[in-house]
Amino acid sequence: MTERLVVIGGDATGMAAASQARRRRAAGELEIVAFERGRHVSYSACGIPYWIAGDTDGPDSLVARTAAEHRKNDIDLRLGTEAVAIDAERGRVLSRDTDGREEWTGYDQLVIATGAVPVRPPIPGVEAAGVHGVQTLDDGEAVLKGLDREGVRRAVVVGGGYIGVEMAEAMLRHGLDVTLVDGAEQPMSTLDPDMGRLVRDALEGLGVRVVSGSPVTAVLTDDGGRARAVATDDEEFPADIVVLGLGVRPNTALAADAGLPLGSHGGLLTDRAMRVRGRETVWAGGDCVEVLNLVSGTLQHIALGTHANKHGRIIGVNIGGGYATFPGVVGTAVSKVCDVEIARTGLKESQARAAGLQYVTAVIESTSRAGYYPEAAVMTVKMLAERGTGRLLGVQIVGREGAAKRVDIAAVALTAGMTVDQMIELDLGYAPPFSPVWDPILVAARKAAGEVAERAGRR
Amino acid sequence: MTERLVVIGGDATGMAAASQARRRRAAGELEIVAFERGRHVSYSACGIPYWIAGDTDGPDSLVARTAAEHRKNDIDLRLGTEAVAIDAERGRVLSRDTDGREEWTGYDQLVIATGAVPVRPPIPGVEAAGVHGVQTLDDGEAVLKGLDREGVRRAVVVGGGYIGVEMAEAMLRHGLDVTLVDGAEQPMSTLDPDMGRLVRDALEGLGVRVVSGSPVTAVLTDDGGRARAVATDDEEFPADIVVLGLGVRPNTALAADAGLPLGSHGGLLTDRAMRVRGRETVWAGGDCVEVLNLVSGTLQHIALGTHANKHGRIIGVNIGGGYATFPGVVGTAVSKVCDVEIARTGLKESQARAAGLQYVTAVIESTSRAGYYPEAAVMTVKMLAERGTGRLLGVQIVGREGAAKRVDIAAVALTAGMTVDQMIELDLGYAPPFSPVWDPILVAARKAAGEVAERAGRR
Repeated sequence: MTERLVVIGGDATGMAAASQARRRRAAGELEIVAFERGRHVSYSACGIPYWIAGDTDGPDSLVARTAAEHRKNDIDLRLGTEAVAIDAERGRVLSRDTDGREEWTGYDQLVIATGAVPVRPPIPGVEAAGVHGVQTLDDGEAVLKGLDREGVRRAVVVGGGYIGVEMAEAMLRHGLDVTLVDGAEQPMSTLDPDMGRLVRDALEGLGVRVVSGSPVTAVLTDDGGRARAVATDDEEFPADIVVLGLGVRPNTALAADAGLPLGSHGGLLTDRAMRVRGRETVWAGGDCVEVLNLVSGTLQHIALGTHANKHGRIIGVNIGGGYATFPGVVGTAVSKVCDVEIARTGLKESQARAAGLQYVTAVIESTSRAGYYPEAAVMTVKMLAERGTGRLLGVQIVGREGAAKRVDIAAVALTAGMTVDQMIELDLGYAPPFSPVWDPILVAARKAAGEVAERAGRR
Repeated sequence: MTERLVVIGGDATGMAAASQARRRRAAGELEIVAFERGRHVSYSACGIPYWIAGDTDGPDSLVARTAAEHRKNDIDLRLGTEAVAIDAERGRVLSRDTDGREEWTGYDQLVIATGAVPVRPPIPGVEAAGVHGVQTLDDGEAVLKGLDREGVRRAVVVGGGYIGVEMAEAMLRHGLDVTLVDGAEQPMSTLDPDMGRLVRDALEGLGVRVVSGSPVTAVLTDDGGRARAVATDDEEFPADIVVLGLGVRPNTALAADAGLPLGSHGGLLTDRAMRVRGRETVWAGGDCVEVLNLVSGTLQHIALGTHANKHGRIIGVNIGGGYATFPGVVGTAVSKVCDVEIARTGLKESQARAAGLQYVTAVIESTSRAGYYPEAAVMTVKMLAERGTGRLLGVQIVGREGAAKRVDIAAVALTAGMTVDQMIELDLGYAPPFSPVWDPILVAARKAAGEVAERAGRR
């Protein structure tokens, strides 16, 4: 008998799950229906800032696989069609197309891949014309159209996280005066403030005005209702265009209405196989779920394309009759603003404290290449290790070329539960164009191991 | 009572050991005497090809710490002084200075850091003028002087390993016609031949003539005794300068004469603390010892500055009253020729076979950045995994920017004994400027895991 798989959401998780299930089960055995409310599928939202900056074409080049390709693959993909209700009891989904036509579709297996929605603070003016999110390809087109208007000279970016700093760069690249306004102590609050300070210095060096510790209280509008400034308690920042980079939250209203289990961050809760907890035939992954942080042992919401793709593959393998699981994350993230590279993995200080972990820290400066080699660039590495055990807890890096992807060394070490003492002897690639004889990660591990020993001496 | 530490060899291991011991024990407690037969200490031999290529100044910039700095640190450093005998019974070393004066110096602790000597094949003409090794700073100066001679147009590089390909690039940078002659099936025989083929293609693309599978049988000389050509069984290659890049062997004649234990590769055998086996007060490290390969479980000789520095630190910590050990290596090495990056870790196919390991292989092509991001460069990744267990055995990478240091991910995974299945879910840094959504290492792990499963199905 033919089973039916229904997929809600046509981006990374949903379409990876559909494609992987299709590779393992032919159309005669598994019918696949996918609902996507937008016009695009399988696109890289992470690429939008680079498209806006002009680094890459868009929006087509950001699409990894087109609707036509999915359909050729015997996936019944319905664009412009939104899932508006899940009836988990009877195993069916209510969809609505752009003409308002509604229809119930029964499922044997359901994949919920509804992604995330950008955080819009509940402040006056936030919905005004000229205020842009950067979540979808349509958003990207709207920003580019906004930049094309006459007399656009000043941009205000609200939020200093990854999207915020990437969009600050994109606005600079359009020749605008850029102000970045953020409520946190320093930009890039996924780093500790001492490392965030380096990002702030880099942004300021590029000519961005950085206003930290000042939550935005309103978007002020002109007579036509268009954004003209962003206000904090202390100041007004004139803006011809406003970009919101305040992060995202799980898009789980539909799942909540269906009575599916949500965690404290609002994401769906799943088992290791990415099955929604307690539901045999309902799966979820990507930006709408919570994931286990292997270092803190707690659940987190992390919206990142790489996790979304992995989840989709795992779901598709399992629906296809194979077996795959997702062990969790260690919290790795990399970004850049112009030539400044930023990376982190594991726990920052406040996260370690929240997890009940005591730790030592080590901050070192080293270079990306042998000091005598051309273009050797300074990088700062901060490492956290657990008091007593010396187990690695986290790494943060700010530098230039060659800085960001070094965090992968720490990501693997975290996954393996290595101590900083063990890390000192890691056999990392060395040649003068690629590393000093002691890789910066090893230098940090040496210092951290020293701190662990010192702390042990004075219990 | 003051102890005396005698160090033989003033490069990475010897001076790192001396410096680390000094940090932990003051001059009143530990006297340190170091013999170095050359004129330089603590220099980066790995930097010599880049100095010759003109990428970096030399030779001073290649010196990490000068003799004067070491002496200021209360290390009695004797340049131009060669250790010519070790009397292990009575605990003393016989040294000879440039004037031929000999002297016995007693020791309480001895560090043997005599490094390696370049392999010179026993063929006619190999000692002729115009034939250069690239092991010491003096060698580097000699090559540069050789290049300054009038009418130097054609270089022949003998040997296709790391030094060979780096020197081929250096010769190209001087505008020479370059021929690389090598006895192995493909250049860079630390890779499997299918990956070495990519290095060959890259070298040929740069204009190097690559002659493989042809051991050099003679260096032909002119009437003045200067090298004029390199000969194989089949052909003669005219040369105005000849560079030997045939690798090195442990420099252990002195240790052998003293009855110290050597392994099958001619390197000193040590325990985990880098103490020479069975000798309480004799230590050795760097290019003159054999190290445990953690993947094959066998001893190897690997001449690499990063190991030499680690060994020196460990010896110094232990002599200084602390505790440190060297667990072994996984065989990581990175290099480049112009903009082509080359990396390897773990075992290649022939090494896995020699270790009695059965394996599957996966070869994939991916890119260093998201495909749509500017300058995304193709890289080829080859992965070996153990049959049955799926344990990672090795990774080889040939690509361009961003290829080489990705091998560190595999180096850490090898150290941790991960399976390729576990590697698929590694939380590696992802952002479009730094990686496709599936990092190339993850793509290779997926394919390798598939091969492991497939092979399991057909036992």
